[in-house]
Amino acid sequence: MPGLFFDDITIGQAFEAGPHRVDRDEILDFANRFDPNPFHLDDEAAQEAGLPGIIASGFHTLSLSFRLFFELHIWDDAIIPSPGLNNIRWLKPLFPGDELRIRATILSKTPSQSRPDRGAVVALHESFVAGGEDPILTVEAIHRLRTRASKRD
Amino acid sequence: MPGLFFDDITIGQAFEAGPHRVDRDEILDFANRFDPNPFHLDDEAAQEAGLPGIIASGFHTLSLSFRLFFELHIWDDAIIPSPGLNNIRWLKPLFPGDELRIRATILSKTPSQSRPDRGAVVALHESFVAGGEDPILTVEAIHRLRTRASKRD
Repeated sequence: MPGLFFDDITIGQAFEAGPHRVDRDEILDFANRFDPNPFHLDDEAAQEAGLPGIIASGFHTLSLSFRLFFELHIWDDAIIPSPGLNNIRWLKPLFPGDELRIRATILSKTPSQSRPDRGAVVALHESFVAGGEDPILTVEAIHRLRTRASKRD
Repeated sequence: MPGLFFDDITIGQAFEAGPHRVDRDEILDFANRFDPNPFHLDDEAAQEAGLPGIIASGFHTLSLSFRLFFELHIWDDAIIPSPGLNNIRWLKPLFPGDELRIRATILSKTPSQSRPDRGAVVALHESFVAGGEDPILTVEAIHRLRTRASKRD
């Protein structure tokens, strides 16, 4: 489903991606670079925090979830840098070996008041791991997209 | 200011970190891994999008801003995995060569109703680049912290 523009988006439309197997080295590498809290790096520290072992940084779970979404390439010719995200909730940990999947569901679309060549789409992004029905992460993303007309020149 | 617990936090307290110089390779590396949109990878594509050149992924700006914060090590013995973030706003782009700084200001603290050994602290995190007074990123983070009493055993 490539080449979507603002015009093509409908409320309730959903996009799914994954699975991506998250390995331990990947978790350690991200945590070392961006989130060196002990429960992301050391099993013993994680166990002291009441966890079975290390968990991925929430910023890693978030970034990886959006990578799976962007790899769908649904609106590559329409996307403009996003103004923001709302209500990020890390509901359950992401562990080494987990198989990550995502679903993005369109909640609303609003044409720009000032720029007729674009609009904003809000999508609920949910991340899941194999074997779990409830999301481990939910977040609402504001996606800014061009209209088809904006490409005609 | 190491070793803070929930008890030690006061509303209005602020923490600053940085600068960290963001180089082009770092931006490309993150974008390739997590956010391969063309305006993060290719100067020409960025220019077509009305930018002077590539900009960092918003997930990169976010992750790097929290790394600078965590590197202050203000509450290493108190931190528990966070439940979430609110109102992420990418206000201006982060460019190669920018010097990133952050400030986190405590907005509120709420003892846990169910667990007397912990509480939640909400902080406004703002990111800045050298030469700019206005933040390029703002986000409210919910930090979950242990109390001092929870360590006495």
